[in-house]
Parts: sequence; structure tokens; C-alpha cells
Amino acid sequence: MKVETEEVHQSRHRSERHAAARSIQPILNPRSVALVGASRQPGTIGAALLANLKRCAFTGPIYPINPKAAEIDGLTAYPAVSAVGAPIDMALIAVPAPMVESAVRDCARAGVRGVVIVSSGFGELSQEGREIEKRLRDFCRASGMRMVGPNCMGVLNTDPAISMNAVFVPPWPPAGNIGLLSQSGALGYVILDRIEALKIGLSTFISVGNKVDVSGNDLLAYWAEDPRTDVIVLYLESFGNPREFARVAPEVACRKPIVAMKSGRSAAGTRAATSHSASLANLDVAVDALFEQAGVIRASTLEELMDVAVLLANQPVPAGPRVGVISNGGGPGILLADACEARGLTLPELAPGTVEALHQMLPKMAGLANPIDMIASATAAHYAAAIELVGNDPGIDSLIVIYLPPHLHDPAEVASAISEAAGKVPLEKPVLTVLMSSRGVPMPENAGIRGRLPSYSFPENAAVALAAAERYSRWRTRPAGRCLSLTPSAQAAIRGVIDRVVANHGKPVWLEPDDLATVLRAAGIEFAAIEEAHVRDAASVSERLGYPLVLKIQAPEVLHKSDVGGVVLGLRSKDEVAESTDRLVREMKSAGITLERVLLQREVRGGIEALVGVTADPTFGPLLVCGLGGVLVELIKDVSFRLTPVSDVDAAEMLSKLRSARLLDGYRGNPAGDRAALIDVILRVSALVELVPELHELDLNPVKVLPPGEGAIVVDGRLRVGRV
Amino acid sequence: MKVETEEVHQSRHRSERHAAARSIQPILNPRSVALVGASRQPGTIGAALLANLKRCAFTGPIYPINPKAAEIDGLTAYPAVSAVGAPIDMALIAVPAPMVESAVRDCARAGVRGVVIVSSGFGELSQEGREIEKRLRDFCRASGMRMVGPNCMGVLNTDPAISMNAVFVPPWPPAGNIGLLSQSGALGYVILDRIEALKIGLSTFISVGNKVDVSGNDLLAYWAEDPRTDVIVLYLESFGNPREFARVAPEVACRKPIVAMKSGRSAAGTRAATSHSASLANLDVAVDALFEQAGVIRASTLEELMDVAVLLANQPVPAGPRVGVISNGGGPGILLADACEARGLTLPELAPGTVEALHQMLPKMAGLANPIDMIASATAAHYAAAIELVGNDPGIDSLIVIYLPPHLHDPAEVASAISEAAGKVPLEKPVLTVLMSSRGVPMPENAGIRGRLPSYSFPENAAVALAAAERYSRWRTRPAGRCLSLTPSAQAAIRGVIDRVVANHGKPVWLEPDDLATVLRAAGIEFAAIEEAHVRDAASVSERLGYPLVLKIQAPEVLHKSDVGGVVLGLRSKDEVAESTDRLVREMKSAGITLERVLLQREVRGGIEALVGVTADPTFGPLLVCGLGGVLVELIKDVSFRLTPVSDVDAAEMLSKLRSARLLDGYRGNPAGDRAALIDVILRVSALVELVPELHELDLNPVKVLPPGEGAIVVDGRLRVGRV
Repeated sequence: MKVETEEVHQSRHRSERHAAARSIQPILNPRSVALVGASRQPGTIGAALLANLKRCAFTGPIYPINPKAAEIDGLTAYPAVSAVGAPIDMALIAVPAPMVESAVRDCARAGVRGVVIVSSGFGELSQEGREIEKRLRDFCRASGMRMVGPNCMGVLNTDPAISMNAVFVPPWPPAGNIGLLSQSGALGYVILDRIEALKIGLSTFISVGNKVDVSGNDLLAYWAEDPRTDVIVLYLESFGNPREFARVAPEVACRKPIVAMKSGRSAAGTRAATSHSASLANLDVAVDALFEQAGVIRASTLEELMDVAVLLANQPVPAGPRVGVISNGGGPGILLADACEARGLTLPELAPGTVEALHQMLPKMAGLANPIDMIASATAAHYAAAIELVGNDPGIDSLIVIYLPPHLHDPAEVASAISEAAGKVPLEKPVLTVLMSSRGVPMPENAGIRGRLPSYSFPENAAVALAAAERYSRWRTRPAGRCLSLTPSAQAAIRGVIDRVVANHGKPVWLEPDDLATVLRAAGIEFAAIEEAHVRDAASVSERLGYPLVLKIQAPEVLHKSDVGGVVLGLRSKDEVAESTDRLVREMKSAGITLERVLLQREVRGGIEALVGVTADPTFGPLLVCGLGGVLVELIKDVSFRLTPVSDVDAAEMLSKLRSARLLDGYRGNPAGDRAALIDVILRVSALVELVPELHELDLNPVKVLPPGEGAIVVDGRLRVGRV
Repeated sequence: MKVETEEVHQSRHRSERHAAARSIQPILNPRSVALVGASRQPGTIGAALLANLKRCAFTGPIYPINPKAAEIDGLTAYPAVSAVGAPIDMALIAVPAPMVESAVRDCARAGVRGVVIVSSGFGELSQEGREIEKRLRDFCRASGMRMVGPNCMGVLNTDPAISMNAVFVPPWPPAGNIGLLSQSGALGYVILDRIEALKIGLSTFISVGNKVDVSGNDLLAYWAEDPRTDVIVLYLESFGNPREFARVAPEVACRKPIVAMKSGRSAAGTRAATSHSASLANLDVAVDALFEQAGVIRASTLEELMDVAVLLANQPVPAGPRVGVISNGGGPGILLADACEARGLTLPELAPGTVEALHQMLPKMAGLANPIDMIASATAAHYAAAIELVGNDPGIDSLIVIYLPPHLHDPAEVASAISEAAGKVPLEKPVLTVLMSSRGVPMPENAGIRGRLPSYSFPENAAVALAAAERYSRWRTRPAGRCLSLTPSAQAAIRGVIDRVVANHGKPVWLEPDDLATVLRAAGIEFAAIEEAHVRDAASVSERLGYPLVLKIQAPEVLHKSDVGGVVLGLRSKDEVAESTDRLVREMKSAGITLERVLLQREVRGGIEALVGVTADPTFGPLLVCGLGGVLVELIKDVSFRLTPVSDVDAAEMLSKLRSARLLDGYRGNPAGDRAALIDVILRVSALVELVPELHELDLNPVKVLPPGEGAIVVDGRLRVGRV
């Protein structure tokens, strides 16, 4: 039972997050750094870290810790952190694994506020390593220290006031507004390397390694408050606490876009991720559901991760899907149009005034239908004028400029014109460029008020990035949803049933039909009248229920009754019920099952078949699933998932995402369905999940969705509960 | 009626193709070239073409044609091609559009064998331009000349014996085994530029422009016979003659892979392609069907086009989907595993002997489950040993080696070891590399017997390329299919009906039910007994047919009878038929329709609902479609397409591609379906299409697929025919 009001709850969460953000401060913005395992021997991690800290001119004191040296590289060295005798915000630990625990204890003695354990050989290697990690975490928490790693690559902050390169690989990207987290050292290196090569700016980078203490959730809280970070980029291989992520991420994503790549989708990938540095294999549909609900942009490739990040770091989020395209070649414009439309963007016709102005200016061979083809002779002046014209067309929300440097002219002049003209496009519209040359095009960094425009080598990459930004924009502007709460008396009734069942059974059990009916009805979910009877009483019970009736076998051995012919429809009289019951007894007997009891239920005629269910994933917790159309749709997996709790907005989105969604509108002369009633069932199932943490599995299938105004009725279902 | 035997037919096609191939010879392998419009004025196309021909040292004589100059750039110039007085294989034409026709006539007088019209301003611009193009084509054909373009960028041949750069843009890629065709000048330039920058070898390049005469089909025939070309790469915006492509491409693809990108998928893309240089907007599902049947690898992005081409140009085609992966970082291996499995490749566990040998050699932190993670400390020797071990594991068909250059060592040694070790992998297994560094990794070109290995910057690109090669490999080894032919008497019966209907109607018409039944039954397709009757006779007719019966309205205004409640099932007596008929008459009347006639049909109980249909696309001709599962599957578009004729192998593939294919195996206790009977219906529909070119549309829906051995029965259908 909830004892907090929603407001108290929210406020407590905000405080917790603020505390998490503050606890990361000493790690990413330290005033002083100790380096345990500092070395002058080239090729060691201790030497690489010291060299990078010095090369990038960390603004605070650096204390090399090495019991065998009095001085390293011109800096006074100390035998232990506790021997420094000055306040130390952060300690980097790069000693062999067996020495890490004592080093961390020494840090606590010295009052260090955060440790970054670069050393490897812990949880990624053995069970023993996982136990040491837990001890380290418990010790750090008890000592008021945060801990990054172990098995990580370090941390980095480009802020000139900090200028900390505490990573043991060479890249040092320019200062910028992207905050980057990587769970893989190798991919962290690859991404840093690309970011530096592409001259993309970074605010801070953290390699979280085995994520024993500091995790993505802490960093989300930190970056949400960090004024230097506008875009958050995550490379993840696992989730430690996905439900906390589900709470934090949407709050952050409302203000700053989060672009994430989650690997380990496949069997082999998961196997590798598990043996590597991830804690648990995660269900990929759950990841999709989580990201979608939380407004996190999921990148499916490394290239896409960077393409999207570059766009969001430099340009506004588009207000809508309508794209204007300007090119100096037909083919590239077509490729871009194809790629845009395949991803939900549109290339509308331009306003007559825009077309007329383009017509006046461009040669007669030019193509004036969006995508605009200014043909190969296009000059800097053509680009400048077309960008201003198309960019100011009220019918477009964003602009993509393709430039294929012609072989006869110097491209610098055109590049410069593109940059400057972009400044005349309304500031709320993003401008992207596609520069198709293996030799690169010198886009000026400071021409025009927009600075450097994001540029892509292929049209498809620009389309993928813009489409992701547009989906994010839609998420950000969607209405706030509301969840449904059950009344106190409903809650009491449901808890009564569940408590009794759970108390009586050690292992998870399926609810008896009567209990199921009680729970569903208390939750406000309509359930077709149902009665269980001994086979010899079936006919007399049927008289009480009325006709038409459905007869179902009651045999715990059989999970899918219809699979074995155990469901008989359309029984219209006492005699038909008796006859069918006898037949089922005989058939079950020949299958080796003694049929003693049957279920009788009033038959619900018509309606669109839906399914609503819940499975509890070991990592993600309860996942709610819905689909339309009966057995066939299960076969082709046209279902959508959400993590609970599910709001009305979520529920509506779940339905609209189904390929079969049009069934609810009345397809090909069939009656429409009561969409609102089905959404209500979903919300009530979500509320039930919140009330019953013991719920292991729920399957309402079929739910008959009757014509609008007539409701939705659960015809069959099962619910399994067990001790939490 | 066919008068040729299949063998005669095949042999005639082979001769035609050989003739097409020979006719391209003078264009791509000319012994002499005339350049009409040669110029010394920098910035003109005439000057650029001449400069490129000279720069790349064309091996034959070059004849500049310019009435105003006696000499250009040290070469004797002539006023006209006919004034040269020496044999000329190919003439490049780069004069303004109004001068092109007289230049071409002059070429014919001079006995030129092929003209390449670079000049633009024809069909891409206006209807008048299209008419001039037709005249040019007819003139060339009458004169025994082939014509490339107009509106093209030229042709190129890297063969040292020819060394022809007759393209007006700078790239001159190294000699190699890829033949490239581009329908877009701009994208041709972009692709050439990339190919040169990536040092990918090209045999020949042709920019086909408006494709008025020489088309992709001619080039397929040419490259099939060209010993210097092993891989064919096409960038297409439209199809001129897709049915000829459907005949030529599979024969070529059996020996040499064809990788194609077809743009203009989207509405805006098609609009641009149509206004640009393409002749017709093409149905994208038809393109997919065509490529799939023909064994053509379809690339969805420009990057994929090149990634796949590089693999096929350098490595064998894998014998199966099993991939071994070696890496020196966990994250990249996981990304690769995810990307492979998402595309149908597998990463099997390695043989115990392989794992044990890796275990002996690698550090204890290494991950030995495929993908192998040798961790960052991996040396050249580790790479060499692991490549040999994993490459020789009998459980893998191909090998991908990921190398993330570590920050502390020189990568050249490892790169060299990878190249050499690849030589110890069995030659039938492709080896790919992923080199993850923005600074590039110097892969040696000549280390080891495999030469330069294909390398990719991101794991996902390697997976996409290998998966495409593996799909192609499966296509190449699939059994040869057989089509079905109708008996002469069946053919006569069907032609009799069709000839009468077509003769009686100016416009396309739907066949009357009796005619439809006759045609389907003659074609060997079972059709449920059906009779048409006036509403007042319905009840008496029903007595003749037997029960249960289905009653359907017969109203030409109504296309989908079930949409308006015009189908009544399960009628069991004369009285029920009479009652339902009266009700339908009343209901139709209230909808403004006078119902006079109804259809009565014996009801087919049970069976899996399928649909088999044909639509005639204006460009592609007849497309056969099939699907399973009734109305719902139409809604979610779970259907597959093939161009006719469809073989038994094609038909089986069509069914196995459906997401709902498992329905035929008996899903969740439902009866299985007679798959062979459904395939037979598809084959008979294909035979019907071959026999009836007047067929505009055919829709058999539903076809009831009964349990195995019991056949498949068409329950409702319609067929529209019209003059060809």
C-alpha cells in the first residue's frame, strides 16, 4: 500500500538524484588527483595516465603514488595516498588487482571522495572477483566514497577550468557539449578516437567498466545538472537497475537528448557480453520498450550513435517531419528522399512562392520538386539563395543540403556560402549537410551564426540522424500520461486473495478460476461469467448460466486448452452441454487424462480478439504486452511491450504501434472495437501489477473488444503468483 | 501457343546475349576514339574528356573533332568524324544538344561502331527531348551503331591494353575486377571517387545516362563474357525492360555476383527520379521480387553497395552462415555478433580442440567463446595463431578478424600477421577484417596468398556485407526449379473462354462466375461448386447443390462482398436460403442497390485461408502474390511476390518467406495445411498467366488449404481480362 503522496514521492526522488549528481562532482571535476600506481616505465597504464594528465595540463595538483619512488616525471611521489597530507578529491587506481583493496582503504583514510579503479581482474574474470567487487562497493559506500570501475579506462573532462585527461588512451577531443559514457573500454576508445578525428566536442567522458557502484543512472543525474553538457551518449552492454533508469531517463530526456546503444541483442552477443563485463543478459524487447517509454534514442550501429549525437549537439530538434532538400545532383537527392521516407520523414512539395523564386534563379534544367536538384553547375550564390528560400518555406521543419564538390571548381567557396546561408534559416529548424567527397570538404567552423553544421558522407546517414531527432521531438511534446489507481476497497479485495494464495503455496501457482475472476473483477476488468463444475454437474450448472455457452476442460496438465480440442463453443441447450461433456471425458481418457471438472462460461459473441499479458523479466521486472487478432498475431509476433506502470498515453501508443491497429477502426466491413475499453483494461492490468509484486505471469487471452461503447470482456485468462 | 521447344528458346537467347555483349566491345574496348566537341578551353567537358584520355594514356589513336581547330593539345583535329579517314570504333559526343543529331549521322557515315553521347538536354528535360532520343536510337540501330546516353558521364576501361579514361570527372581507380554501371552521373562520380580513395580495383565503368539504347541488360551480357570482370555493380533508378533483366540476370548471377542499388523507393524519391533521368516509377515490391528471384544482391545504401562489392571482389562466397570472430576487444565482438545474428548469420561454438588450443595460447583473461576476445594485449603472434586455429575449425564457414590498434604498439606488424595468417585459412572460406581506427591501419597489399583483405571501419558493415554474400551463396546453390505447363486441351479450353470475352469487350472486364469456374477448372485449380441464380430461384437452386451453402450477393458495384455483409455462411436448408435472400434484397435496397442475382456455393469447412493473386504492373508485367490467414494478413501485409513464371522452387520460397508460414505446419493444435496443393495452385496460376497475356488481375481469395493430402480449394475469386 502506498503511504506517500505522489508529490512527496517525486520530491524525494529529486533529492536523491541531486545527491547522486553531487557525488559524481569530485570524480569528473576534481580539484586534485592522486594516481595510485604512477609509473615512469613506458608502456604501463600508470605511465600512460600520468603522461595524459600532464600533457593536457590538469589544472589541479597531481600526486603520484608509488612506494618505490620519491619523484616521478618531475612530480613529488608519495608512498601512499594517506601520506600526501593535502585534500584529494579523486584517486585513480592502477595497481595489480590484489593490491586494489588496500589502496582503496588507504584512500578512505586520506578522505578521498571518489576512486576510479582502472585495474582489471575482478568480476569480469571470476566469481571470486565479483565477491571482491561487492566488498569494495560496500566499503566505499560506508566510507562516503563513490567508486568508478573496476576494469575501466578512466575519466575525462575538457572544461578548461579542469582539463583532466585521466584516461590511458591517446584521444583528447575538443571541448564541447556531449557527455559520453561507455561500458566497454575498447568501444570507449573507438568512440573517443572517432570523436577526436571528426572534431566533435566532448564535455566529459566516463568509462564505467564493471559498474559496481557508479552507473549510468548516476551519470544521467550528473549530466542533467551539468551546464556544459547538452547531449548524453551512452554505450551500454547491460542494465544494473533498469527500473531506476526508467524513472531517471525520461526526466533527463525532457531537457537533454539521450542517445544510447545497447549491445548484446543476439545469443552470441549476449554470451560474449556476459563473459565480458556485463552483469546479466537483458531481454532486447524490454530494452526497446524501456528506451521508447523513456524518450531515449536507440542507435542500432556505432555509426548511427555518432551521426545522431553530432546532429543533436549542433542543431535544434525539428518541430515536425517535413524536410526540404537541396542538392547539386539528382541521384543523391533521390537516395536521401528514399531514406527519409523510409524512416517517417516527409519531403513535401514547397510553397508556390518558393518554387517560383527558385525557378527565377536556377537554370532551366534544374529540378524544382523537393528534393531540389540545382544540377552540377550550381554556384555558391545558388546555394546561398536556395538555402534561404527553402529554409524559410513555412512548409518545412528542417533542411538538408547535399553538396557534391564539382571537379572543376574549388569547393571552399560553396562550403562557406552554405555555412553563412544556414544562418538565415529560422533558428528552430535544423540544417544538415551531406558532403559527398572522399577528400572532404572544408566546412568553416565559424561562418554564420550557426557555427559548424553537422555533415555526413552519405545521404542515408543524414536521414537516419534526422529521423531519430524527429522521433525524439515527438516524444518530448507528447502529453503527460496518467496511470490508473485502484480504489482502496478494490485493493483490499485483491490483496486478500493474493495473500491467501501466496501464504498457502511455497512455489508460484496459477490462481484457481474463482480467484482469478474475483481478482479481475475487483480490478475493474470485465470477465465473462464463469463457473467450474464436476463433469456430472455440468449440464445442471449450464441452466443457471444461460446460453450460448462455452465448455472448457479443467485440466492443469493442459496449458493451451484449444490446442487439444478442449474448448467447445456455441452450446445452446442442457442436452448439448451433457453430450459435449461426455465426449470430452472420453477423448481426454484416451489421451491418458482423467477429466473430472469443466468450466462453463457464457459465450461472448463477436468482438475483436485482443491479448493483454504480463511477464516478469528477472532484470526488468514486469513487462506488459498487448496484441490484436488472436492466434495468428501471436504467430507473427505483432505485439507491443511496455514496462509497468503504463499510463494512458503509453497504452494508446502500444495499440497504435501494432501493425494490426486498424482492426480497431473496423477493417473491411468488420465492426470497429472499443479502443477506450481496451486501453482501460491495459491501465487496470498495470495497476494490478503495481499492487501485486508477487505477480509472475498474467495472460488475458482472448479479451473480446466489443463495438465502441460496449466495452471489452476477458474471456479466458490465467494468473500466476508466488513469493517475491 | 508456344512453337519453340525450351532448348531452341534457350539457345536463341544465348545467341542474342552474345550479340549484345559483342556490340558493347567497341564502346568499352575501342581501338580508336573520336571526340566530337574536343576543346582546349579549360572548364569545358570537351577539354576534360580530352585531358583524361591523354592523362591515362589511351592506347589507341585519339581524334579530336572540332571544325574551328586544326590541332588541339598536340593532336591533329578534324572538322568531322567522317573527315578522319581512319577506322573509328567509338565516338564520344560532347557538343550542345541541337548539334548532336548531325554529329551522330556523321559518325554513321564514318563507320563508327558505338557512340557515347555525353551531351544533356534530351529526355530528362522535355517531351521533345524524348522524341529526339527515339529518333537517335532508331537511327543508330538502323546504322548498326550502339548508343550510350545521352546525358551521361562517359565510359572507362582500366585494362592496360586499353587504358581508356573517357569520363569527364577526375577519378581513375586502380585496375581490378569490378564492372560498374551508374544511371546517375552524380552518383557515378561519387562511387568512382570512393572506389579510387579506397583503392578498390575496377575493370570497366559505364555511365548509361538516359539509357535510350544501351542499358543494364546489355552490360550484364558484356560483363558475363568479360574475363576481367568478376563482380558486377549497378546503380539503377529505373528499369527499361525488367522482364529481359529477369531472364538475363539469373544466368549471369550463377557465375558472377551482381550487386545492385535501385533508388526511387519513396514517393518523393520517385518524383525526383522521374523528373531526373529515369523513365518510369517502378513498384518497389516488384524490384525486390525481381532481385530475389534473379539472385541479385540488393544494397539498401550506397555504403552497403560498396561494402558488399569489396567483399565479393576479393573473397570467395561463403558456403554457409557460420562465422568465426576474433577480436582484441570485447565490445566490438559483441557488436559484430549482434549484427551477424540479426542478418541470419550464426556464431557457433568452436570445436573443443580449437577452444583448447586457444586456451593454451591466450592469456587467462581472454574470452574463448565465439566471438573470441584476445583482449588488448594481443600480439601479432596471437593473431596469427588464432586466425589459423579458428579459420581451420570445420564448424565455421567464414572468418572476421577485428583489430583495434592498441595505443602502445605499432599496428603494422599485426596487420601484416593478419594478412599472412589469412593465407592459412582454407581458400573456400572468406576472411574479412574490421580495422577500428580513424587513422587507418596499413594492411599490406601483397602479404600472404590472399592479397589484400577487405576491411571495414565498423563491425556492422562487415556483418552486412558477409550476410549479403551468404544469401547470394544460398541462392546460387538452390535447386533448379521447374514450371508447370498446362495440357494442350486445357490451353484450348481456356483460350476459348478468354478469346470470346476479349472479343466482346473493348475495355477490361471481370469474368462472369461461370467463365471463371471454367477457366480455373481447366487450369487444374479446384473451385468450389458455384451457381448463379435470380433471387427468386435461389432456394430451388440450393436444393440441387446440397448443404451447407454460402450465399453471396452478385452486384458488380460491390468489390468486397464481405465488407457490406453480402456473404452469408452456413445455410442448412431451403428455408434458410430463402429467408437470407429476402433479407439481402432488403438490405441492398436500403443501400440503393437493386439485388437481382445471387451466387450459391457449397461451403468448404475448415482449412487454412490463403490468397493467391496476380497484378499486372505497367513496367514489370504480371506479379504473382500469395499470403496466408485471411483478412488479417492482408491488413498487416504479410504477403510475398514473384514475377511470373514461377517455378516450384520459387513457390516454395514464397510460402517459406511468409511470417505466417508456420500456419501450414499446424499451429497451436490447428490442423496442418496441404502445402504441396497450395504450391500446385501457385504453379497453375503462373501457367495461366503465361497462357493469357490479356490477364489484368486475378484474385483467388480465400483459397482453403485443407489438411495434407486433401488439397486446396478456391472458394472465391475474380479475374479481369482485357485486350493486350
